[in-house]
Amino acid sequence: MPQLKAILFDIDDTLFPTTEFARKARRNAVRAMIEAGLDLPEERVARELEEVLAEFTSNYEHHFDKLLMRLRPACLARVNPALIVAAGVAAYHDTKFHELVPYEDVPPFFGALRKAGIRLGILTHGWTVKQAEKLVRLGLVPFLEPSSIFISDQLGISKPNPKLWTLALADMHLLPQEAMYVGDSPEQDIGAPKALGMIAVWASRGAKHGLEPSGIQPDHSIADFRELAAILRERYGVQLATF
Amino acid sequence: MPQLKAILFDIDDTLFPTTEFARKARRNAVRAMIEAGLDLPEERVARELEEVLAEFTSNYEHHFDKLLMRLRPACLARVNPALIVAAGVAAYHDTKFHELVPYEDVPPFFGALRKAGIRLGILTHGWTVKQAEKLVRLGLVPFLEPSSIFISDQLGISKPNPKLWTLALADMHLLPQEAMYVGDSPEQDIGAPKALGMIAVWASRGAKHGLEPSGIQPDHSIADFRELAAILRERYGVQLATF
Repeated sequence: MPQLKAILFDIDDTLFPTTEFARKARRNAVRAMIEAGLDLPEERVARELEEVLAEFTSNYEHHFDKLLMRLRPACLARVNPALIVAAGVAAYHDTKFHELVPYEDVPPFFGALRKAGIRLGILTHGWTVKQAEKLVRLGLVPFLEPSSIFISDQLGISKPNPKLWTLALADMHLLPQEAMYVGDSPEQDIGAPKALGMIAVWASRGAKHGLEPSGIQPDHSIADFRELAAILRERYGVQLATF
Repeated sequence: MPQLKAILFDIDDTLFPTTEFARKARRNAVRAMIEAGLDLPEERVARELEEVLAEFTSNYEHHFDKLLMRLRPACLARVNPALIVAAGVAAYHDTKFHELVPYEDVPPFFGALRKAGIRLGILTHGWTVKQAEKLVRLGLVPFLEPSSIFISDQLGISKPNPKLWTLALADMHLLPQEAMYVGDSPEQDIGAPKALGMIAVWASRGAKHGLEPSGIQPDHSIADFRELAAILRERYGVQLATF
């Protein structure tokens, strides 16, 4: 078995609880809008916002505008709607930018991996600056190889196209067997790297869907990074300190 | 002389030092980009950013991308440029959203005006949610009449078109002589409201240009809101508490 040299990670719902976090940000936005004068029950506003999100793409400023158009609250006779939208946007931003933290085991795990000589990179789907800003906000940049950040939008290749992983391996001068990929989505994160010969790890903690409906089999399934640390020690001979 | 009933304010460089503040945000962004690996002297990066700003419209994320394209720093062989851009964006955001405070005399002045029975509104040029978010971040919304926020982008009328002030007066059911307008720009904020018969006040503290080149004469010029408070007491009979 060739030596494991590098691990690449997905970001969303793998390094921090993105889905849970976005829900919290939206809830804080709804509460701020009500405090700013929106005269409707929180649950009704929250439900309508979920509908807007399901129907339109992700630009939250316009989402809040649409939300007000749909709700047609009586308060708009007395309050400029921009004040309500702005209160929502500010609360959303504050939550998203200032309560963003990784899963608690990520920084010590990354620190231990670096000490063990493992190279760390990112391979993620999303908008370039948005994904990079998450890494900055999560405080994870110092652990990562600054040239080994692969973002689908920046490369013009989308998950789960295997070209994305092929390109990452080539840029990092790695054989597939020398690299592990860790992600939360069976459909997006497992099949392609595994087919290339990489070690594919499914991180279930933040996953929206289980493995069963997809029929996809990862090399390993983990609930947290302490489990992955044990696998790395026992199965891949990585001299990893406990954390 | 009819009784003064309401005062409308501009936001930028009238209620907070917008220009100085944006300069600080850009400086913090440049420093964060250098910390993230940009291997060039701070002054050179700052100067190039000023050039980008002079040549392109205000979308800072793309500004930072353009900045890197123009600088072509050697570090891009080792660092994904998105990490540098994201570090700049995060620092810019943090400064802009979390160090935003009004001039120190604004909250006590607004509080005293409200106690004296003066109605307070905003008439400002700019993007709707951006301007409204500034009011939220500055903590000034509780002092304002929530229906009396007039934003050029939201109304489809730009400064210094007098229609903007006419519309505000109509919506607030005011005669021009019953209302004062306070702004920092001789060209944008003085001529139109004065021509309509409103009381036009030039706030010089954050002004980029003096009165002389424009030849425009306001009804009053003030260096800060303590000066305006004195004018309101002495010339308009407003029973204003000291602050």
